[in-house]
Amino acid sequence: MADMTKLKGIFAAMCTPMDDQGDTIDLGRYRAHMDDMIEAGLHGLVLGSGTGEYAYLSDDERRRLIKEGAKHVNGRVPTIAQTTAMSTRDCIESARFAQDAGADALMVLPPFLEPPNERGVMYHYTAIAKSVSIPIVMYNVPEQAAPMTEDLYRRLLAVENLDYIKDSSGDFVALQKLIGIGGHVMNGSDPYAVHSLMSGCVGMIWGAANFMPHECAQLYDLVVAGKHAEALALWDKMKAICFWLSGNVHDVDYLTGVKAATRLTGRDMGGARKPLPPVPGAARHDIKLALSKLPVNRTKVDRLVWRDWQEERDWLVQSYRNN
Amino acid sequence: MADMTKLKGIFAAMCTPMDDQGDTIDLGRYRAHMDDMIEAGLHGLVLGSGTGEYAYLSDDERRRLIKEGAKHVNGRVPTIAQTTAMSTRDCIESARFAQDAGADALMVLPPFLEPPNERGVMYHYTAIAKSVSIPIVMYNVPEQAAPMTEDLYRRLLAVENLDYIKDSSGDFVALQKLIGIGGHVMNGSDPYAVHSLMSGCVGMIWGAANFMPHECAQLYDLVVAGKHAEALALWDKMKAICFWLSGNVHDVDYLTGVKAATRLTGRDMGGARKPLPPVPGAARHDIKLALSKLPVNRTKVDRLVWRDWQEERDWLVQSYRNN
Amino acid sequence: MADMTKLKGIFAAMCTPMDDQGDTIDLGRYRAHMDDMIEAGLHGLVLGSGTGEYAYLSDDERRRLIKEGAKHVNGRVPTIAQTTAMSTRDCIESARFAQDAGADALMVLPPFLEPPNERGVMYHYTAIAKSVSIPIVMYNVPEQAAPMTEDLYRRLLAVENLDYIKDSSGDFVALQKLIGIGGHVMNGSDPYAVHSLMSGCVGMIWGAANFMPHECAQLYDLVVAGKHAEALALWDKMKAICFWLSGNVHDVDYLTGVKAATRLTGRDMGGARKPLPPVPGAARHDIKLALSKLPVNRTKVDRLVWRDWQEERDWLVQSYRNN
Amino acid sequence: MADMTKLKGIFAAMCTPMDDQGDTIDLGRYRAHMDDMIEAGLHGLVLGSGTGEYAYLSDDERRRLIKEGAKHVNGRVPTIAQTTAMSTRDCIESARFAQDAGADALMVLPPFLEPPNERGVMYHYTAIAKSVSIPIVMYNVPEQAAPMTEDLYRRLLAVENLDYIKDSSGDFVALQKLIGIGGHVMNGSDPYAVHSLMSGCVGMIWGAANFMPHECAQLYDLVVAGKHAEALALWDKMKAICFWLSGNVHDVDYLTGVKAATRLTGRDMGGARKPLPPVPGAARHDIKLALSKLPVNRTKVDRLVWRDWQEERDWLVQSYRNN
Repeated sequence: MADMTKLKGIFAAMCTPMDDQGDTIDLGRYRAHMDDMIEAGLHGLVLGSGTGEYAYLSDDERRRLIKEGAKHVNGRVPTIAQTTAMSTRDCIESARFAQDAGADALMVLPPFLEPPNERGVMYHYTAIAKSVSIPIVMYNVPEQAAPMTEDLYRRLLAVENLDYIKDSSGDFVALQKLIGIGGHVMNGSDPYAVHSLMSGCVGMIWGAANFMPHECAQLYDLVVAGKHAEALALWDKMKAICFWLSGNVHDVDYLTGVKAATRLTGRDMGGARKPLPPVPGAARHDIKLALSKLPVNRTKVDRLVWRDWQEERDWLVQSYRNN
Repeated sequence: MADMTKLKGIFAAMCTPMDDQGDTIDLGRYRAHMDDMIEAGLHGLVLGSGTGEYAYLSDDERRRLIKEGAKHVNGRVPTIAQTTAMSTRDCIESARFAQDAGADALMVLPPFLEPPNERGVMYHYTAIAKSVSIPIVMYNVPEQAAPMTEDLYRRLLAVENLDYIKDSSGDFVALQKLIGIGGHVMNGSDPYAVHSLMSGCVGMIWGAANFMPHECAQLYDLVVAGKHAEALALWDKMKAICFWLSGNVHDVDYLTGVKAATRLTGRDMGGARKPLPPVPGAARHDIKLALSKLPVNRTKVDRLVWRDWQEERDWLVQSYRNN
Repeated sequence: MADMTKLKGIFAAMCTPMDDQGDTIDLGRYRAHMDDMIEAGLHGLVLGSGTGEYAYLSDDERRRLIKEGAKHVNGRVPTIAQTTAMSTRDCIESARFAQDAGADALMVLPPFLEPPNERGVMYHYTAIAKSVSIPIVMYNVPEQAAPMTEDLYRRLLAVENLDYIKDSSGDFVALQKLIGIGGHVMNGSDPYAVHSLMSGCVGMIWGAANFMPHECAQLYDLVVAGKHAEALALWDKMKAICFWLSGNVHDVDYLTGVKAATRLTGRDMGGARKPLPPVPGAARHDIKLALSKLPVNRTKVDRLVWRDWQEERDWLVQSYRNN
Repeated sequence: MADMTKLKGIFAAMCTPMDDQGDTIDLGRYRAHMDDMIEAGLHGLVLGSGTGEYAYLSDDERRRLIKEGAKHVNGRVPTIAQTTAMSTRDCIESARFAQDAGADALMVLPPFLEPPNERGVMYHYTAIAKSVSIPIVMYNVPEQAAPMTEDLYRRLLAVENLDYIKDSSGDFVALQKLIGIGGHVMNGSDPYAVHSLMSGCVGMIWGAANFMPHECAQLYDLVVAGKHAEALALWDKMKAICFWLSGNVHDVDYLTGVKAATRLTGRDMGGARKPLPPVPGAARHDIKLALSKLPVNRTKVDRLVWRDWQEERDWLVQSYRNN
């Protein structure tokens, strides 16, 4: 019998390329970045990912990313479209849009601001699942949204179309417990990437794949091939940047950190949408150091041109002038 | 010299009246509810409040609440319009809209989903403050959004238009520390309402004012008049429902709990927007008991008619049918 | 009928006077300090308190504090003896010792290091209560020991001799909920002292009473007399030091902070037991400033003589030499 | 050059065998249990471990465990003696006792009850390290004792005799960060045992080794031999009980859970010291199920005789009668 797992391997939580001020999306670079990710060997793409500043985009922009993304990928790899919304009605509408646009699966966060109780989260996911015919990747990120308890996850798995979950809890024990319950678990926490794959995750949804797609893809392929020693050796070279992104002295958040690292490997993604602040120069030096051991995507320093205004003071001057 | 504090006293974080399914806003009841709140003696109103399901409304609905609200209140009491948005650009646009609509002040949460660091929050509030000429009520609710540290608050106070903060931390010590720093602190946590007023808060932004406006207004008036013993005695009658709303065995959230309590005092606000679930019958009994000691707004049982479909099973049947 | 509440008012969580190195207890000063506390109007004393470095004392020292304390107080005010121990057997033995020594009540923490579950805590308190005939003050300090949930507290109240609890949770909402359950609640968190007394606490067990006994006693007396405005005005002068002790930039802990403040008001308590570190000079300046508004115990600067070795570097030299 | 790492592999955090009431230590069984552990292939033993109810023992009992243990092991494997104490003076005295008794290393928790700040913890460990000539295993268990921050750990590593740490944080990311800093890290959290060994831990201090010593030893040996696939396959059989011990619906704590599991594999360790409660029958069934897949130490049901009084009701009757 064929393996029915539709989504597996490393899915890039794609950055959204913008102009330098972070004001408008650059669809040309977006398409080029998708090609880049696929050519590097990644197993799938997430359209409208959190790393891609989903939270800061307009509904219109979100839909454009999904529509253009699904069209451009054109079946080369599976795509997951994020259609998170606070009201069930809005979420269903977006979900149907994404399905019609050709997405292979959806990703939906539980409500996050003044969220309902478990019965409300249960209703939300169930209603969305009933309104489409493609799989939905649920989401556990208790620091930001209503938590997916073990019990809730167990009950949701009984609903058709709900048999994937992305766990971004940052808690490796919680992740392992979800795996023990069943369904298909995708890891969303960088600092134990290789361990999650060796523990039974079907894959990862991974922001760091934007700047080290070859390494991320290979890590998965090595584990699947049973080459654990090689996977651990590769992980040893990848973990510096993964740890840095999960917490650093400059207090650079994950989104802008990934965007800066991606530019440092020669892929210019533009600025981040405000109020996301620019990454200070000292932090960019940390990133360069952390990337320096990567087999493929080590920093290509010569390609690196930072615009003056990106230093924080100038960014502020520019930013206030533009409003 | 005149007291320059524009916002003081109890501001109702107004419920949003809807049809029974929670699908559409009922503007007629909305206007009636504003009149009700003002006649009961409340000192101000919050238009588009969190308790009013702000997180679950469309941008269009939010603007309608602000525009109709400011017009209908027409200066009888001050109004605060919530214009929270994730991107600075969207927030500024909403802020200007609310100012033009006649709101006396704005209320803005820090970014809440994949939020930026302190520098980003600083930028966000500063940029918004520069784009309008009315005061902005900042917000501390660390369980849901980027935290307002003491240091960040201190720096933000230096910016023109930023000298109010609503603290919904649930931590009475944190609240007192904010008061110690300066500016104008409004309490947003029910379980120590009277204590916050006796500690120097200029007022409260309070969801419970929807169902006990007379008591809330009187509590403030008594403290301001130095009648502490009477205020404490009144608080003794109010605190049962305040504690229940802050945590209960039925896991009823604050929003739907307030909406149910408001209906139980004869003010029908309709259903809540899905995925917010209905309040179970057993929980409504708890609420009735908790309200039974209130001097004015004790439960008027005879007015109480619950529709059958509001029981959870029927609600689910209806809800799935409608999508 | 007479008020049967045996313990009420402000009980000093007495410092333990030691030599300058913190190596040996100075019983002479201990007796003088008890007289000082009683003369200042405090309503009771805790012998072997946490603030008195209970955790760092030998069993022998703990018993000496109880025996000498009960004997010296000789009924002038009620005494509470701490007899916390990890094993039930040891705790019972100490409890009987304290009862025989003349203590009026006992104070017992739940187990704190690799603690048992609720059934174990239930057994512990019940077994101790059955072995003595004086009241036991239970303890809620969830950051340090097994938590006293509302449910556990409710069940423990049914046991004879168990109808007091000291709440040092730092959570004013949790405190109010315990009061709502019943029994006699004593507050152990400084930053909402006056509010706890106005909310129904029968009193406080208070480390800060070591250096401002007159103010602490008066705060309680004012609240009991219904003079809330005066109590709040007094609290305004006391709260600076209370907030500082609950958290400060020098990371000075409560125990050594109280010991330093007590010395600064002219009551030399000696050094703290190692590894408790000395209080840096800059922190002592903060304390002096915070004490400067107190009506009675404002800092008497002229009495203040700090030994040179108390500066941290010298303390380290001395300390390593002595081992 | 020879590997200078003195402590590596799996060290059993030895249970302390007692009589059925948990009142007295059974030294005969203690010696037999040490032989059992060594014969099963474990690489070392911890004398006076937390799992061995260290927190509940008298100082006298603790010393007896160390003295008898070191003497009986007699160099067959390395021994680590726990000498945790709240005051530095007491800790030094115990440390010297353990060194004289022949322990190969010491294990010391940071202070845990009203602990000092980082400077105090720094002093504590440094003073102890200066007073002995054998290595000290520091301890990170932030839920119970003063936390070992990365910065503090970095500074402590510079002190002679301080180059081991046991991390029982339960946080796999924190563990990996400690490994990244340097020194020798031993894992103390069961739920990611195999992953910790593959990430660079020099070994584990492990309570579960009491009931599955062969499996624990083999897990380490497989990882060291580079046989990762086999290690992961073995871990698959071990993880059920590891997860259960880290949290279960019966709220059975780690200490009594290990003691019950050890008895279920035919090694009777007697009762636990009160107030540690007995393990209910339903929980013992969970344990049996979790052990059923172990290659060597699967439950030997026929050996299993539970005394009637161990059911909780009877235990209570007996326990209260004995005080």
